[in-house]
Amino acid sequence: MISEGALAELATVLGDRVSTADSIRNLHGRDESSWPAAPPDAVAFPTSAVEVSALLRICSAHAIPVVPWGIGSSLEGQALPINGGLVVDTARMNRVIEVNDADLDARVQPGVTKNQLNALLADRGLFFAVDPGADATIGGMAASGASGTMTVRYGTIRENVLALEVVLADGQIVRTGSRARKSAAGYDLTHLLLGSEGTLGVITEIVVRLHGIPEETAAAVVCFPSVRAAVDAAITVVQSGIGVARCELLDANTVRCVNAFQGRSFKEVPTLFLEFHGSPAAVADQIEAVTAIVTDHDGSDLRFATRAEERGALWKARHDVYFAQVGSRPGSRSVTTDACVPVSRLADCIEQTVADMGDLAVPAPIVGHVADGNFHCAVLVLPDDEAELAAAKAFSARLAHRAIEMGGTCTGEHGVGLGKRAFLEPQFGASGVALMRTIKGALDPAGIMNPGKILLPN
Amino acid sequence: MISEGALAELATVLGDRVSTADSIRNLHGRDESSWPAAPPDAVAFPTSAVEVSALLRICSAHAIPVVPWGIGSSLEGQALPINGGLVVDTARMNRVIEVNDADLDARVQPGVTKNQLNALLADRGLFFAVDPGADATIGGMAASGASGTMTVRYGTIRENVLALEVVLADGQIVRTGSRARKSAAGYDLTHLLLGSEGTLGVITEIVVRLHGIPEETAAAVVCFPSVRAAVDAAITVVQSGIGVARCELLDANTVRCVNAFQGRSFKEVPTLFLEFHGSPAAVADQIEAVTAIVTDHDGSDLRFATRAEERGALWKARHDVYFAQVGSRPGSRSVTTDACVPVSRLADCIEQTVADMGDLAVPAPIVGHVADGNFHCAVLVLPDDEAELAAAKAFSARLAHRAIEMGGTCTGEHGVGLGKRAFLEPQFGASGVALMRTIKGALDPAGIMNPGKILLPN
Repeated sequence: MISEGALAELATVLGDRVSTADSIRNLHGRDESSWPAAPPDAVAFPTSAVEVSALLRICSAHAIPVVPWGIGSSLEGQALPINGGLVVDTARMNRVIEVNDADLDARVQPGVTKNQLNALLADRGLFFAVDPGADATIGGMAASGASGTMTVRYGTIRENVLALEVVLADGQIVRTGSRARKSAAGYDLTHLLLGSEGTLGVITEIVVRLHGIPEETAAAVVCFPSVRAAVDAAITVVQSGIGVARCELLDANTVRCVNAFQGRSFKEVPTLFLEFHGSPAAVADQIEAVTAIVTDHDGSDLRFATRAEERGALWKARHDVYFAQVGSRPGSRSVTTDACVPVSRLADCIEQTVADMGDLAVPAPIVGHVADGNFHCAVLVLPDDEAELAAAKAFSARLAHRAIEMGGTCTGEHGVGLGKRAFLEPQFGASGVALMRTIKGALDPAGIMNPGKILLPN
Repeated sequence: MISEGALAELATVLGDRVSTADSIRNLHGRDESSWPAAPPDAVAFPTSAVEVSALLRICSAHAIPVVPWGIGSSLEGQALPINGGLVVDTARMNRVIEVNDADLDARVQPGVTKNQLNALLADRGLFFAVDPGADATIGGMAASGASGTMTVRYGTIRENVLALEVVLADGQIVRTGSRARKSAAGYDLTHLLLGSEGTLGVITEIVVRLHGIPEETAAAVVCFPSVRAAVDAAITVVQSGIGVARCELLDANTVRCVNAFQGRSFKEVPTLFLEFHGSPAAVADQIEAVTAIVTDHDGSDLRFATRAEERGALWKARHDVYFAQVGSRPGSRSVTTDACVPVSRLADCIEQTVADMGDLAVPAPIVGHVADGNFHCAVLVLPDDEAELAAAKAFSARLAHRAIEMGGTCTGEHGVGLGKRAFLEPQFGASGVALMRTIKGALDPAGIMNPGKILLPN
């Protein structure tokens, strides 16, 4: 609970932009994960780093938990205020501060969403290339280490952020980098904060890299007789150094969900969605090379989409996969797995995982950023059915261990939050987790920053 | 000084692989910087992380400074044991442990050099793409945040390392990542250690990303009437999204040094060295686009080199620039600047810097990774001439401040070491430096790890 005195102090900073209304609190007690709701005691809507700093000084003084909030699209419970306290919602910090066309970068506030930024950039011939499923905020993406469909070509958020402004637990405002394309100046504070899920500070500004909209873009859909054939084709594409921009696997179950959700008529077999970016000659070159590879791997029904509307429809189908999956079982929520393995192990990992689905007794359609070695099973459980939920979590745990044993990671892009905490020790060893605890203890000695996330309670 | 007792303890771990011989100590008291020699008290040659761990436990117990050592090619005094203590030379940890062709990665010990790794990879059609001037060790490159000529296409060492094994000050051995191409699992320990210059731990293993040797490679040399014209051409190439693999500027003075050093006959004007990688069609495409751009910027004498021998000779000329520069003034050493700015400011920054050379009274030829916004002036001083050295350091300081004011960094790739410590506060503010001190204090509370580097003594 936040004391009346502390609330009054917060109100002196924010006026009516701090709320304890049930409706507001409840909106900030749920994310897109299957974790139970956990409303905060209050929600603040700051408009500047200076206000965030003032809030954090008050919360430090009163030992109030602080949970940064973007748009609530986290998938592992990162944004859930499980210990109550104050949610810092960045919705009113949603300005694109500057776009530097010549340097291919932009400085944005954390509440700017990916689609908002890209809409503004389109007229300038630029785009921001980190593309998770949700229209997440840039701040949330930076905090959770997001990636998405274009990682194979453009990298994750980690390769697309040049610098951050962050407010630490004690209220200090820190600028972590510069607008130079590279730097060897001191400890890499930017990457320490990226993916720290609000446990080390609140991100109040982000300098992102931009890319020129390619002269030519082409998309393709290709069907395969098996998931292994599709994955092998995708991996061969990557290994060949063809600069494919997107390479997404949908298994037959997921295609079925998409057809039902969107009234589409994709053939219900393992399918790759591909995209190619570049000059017309480069795209033609990529298409020729990829066509040869997919044909070698028994790909069929290869169809190209070059017009913007066709491509838009295709990628809308891909971006809606999550909702199509959840919509395929009324009342369900998804326990979404997020294993990522070296690409040479991906087909094995998916096959063993499919074999392991027998126990689930619920659907678990698969979608994957297969060129990165990353795939997601959406285990569709009825949230009130404890047996289903327990089976889903056990399945997810087995998959996390399988990925780690294969030299991979328990989470490729969704982050740790509440759901992956137990797998850090198998992945990093006791010494690795101890080092993370040392860092957390040094930056947030009172433990007020998003407590209970990433690291299990001692 | 290391006590006799501590030396005896070190010898129980390493036998005769710990030395106090003057010849060995003196070899480990100099790097490629202009900082004065500072030999250590002893030098250890461990062969494994377990041995490094044992060494660090002993050094922790006796408060002995520990300085990791690759090949001594650091340019800012990073490897100089200014407080004495123990140098940990990784020369005997020089095995390539595994190469995973299918995953495009390799696991190497820190003493493996860039050329050693690439020689081994060539037969497999793979290469490691971080290409600094010296044949540095991979461990040294990881510790110093190195980059080099191919950054514009393939990234710095930071984008080419998947995971590290590191021994912390207390002897704990930590694995920081996995072989997955991406991960969102906890704090980014890998990037915290990359570029930490031995001040947080000793790197004992590196998982590096590899790339396929491109089907086609072409190089080009093109002359310009001015540095500004050359820089503007380079920046237009970058902004156009043409995937140029290398884009290096040599000013007229540097070309003159190269001609003298190698008996070449390059035209002594501002010159770009370029390289293109890809399929034959993609390279042809890049060449066509770049030719149009350089012609627009008054480029002339454009010559292509496609045969491997021609290209080799060209890039040997580029890689020898440092030695050609130093060789142009007998007895000199170079105070090498390393500013990196947003590319839109690069031409201004170089022009203002050239204007500022008036006071130097010594040569300062320029070479630059201009597509990254990074350039180096080699200020050639006679190391015993204190007036020259002072003028060079003052010039370098003015340039560092100029770069920071332009939104850039005091060091693009050489690191902080001793030479750039004073510029971290102008660049990151007091709060940023305080955060770096907090991290250092948490990971190395006794301050034994490469003391005096990155952070100024309190």
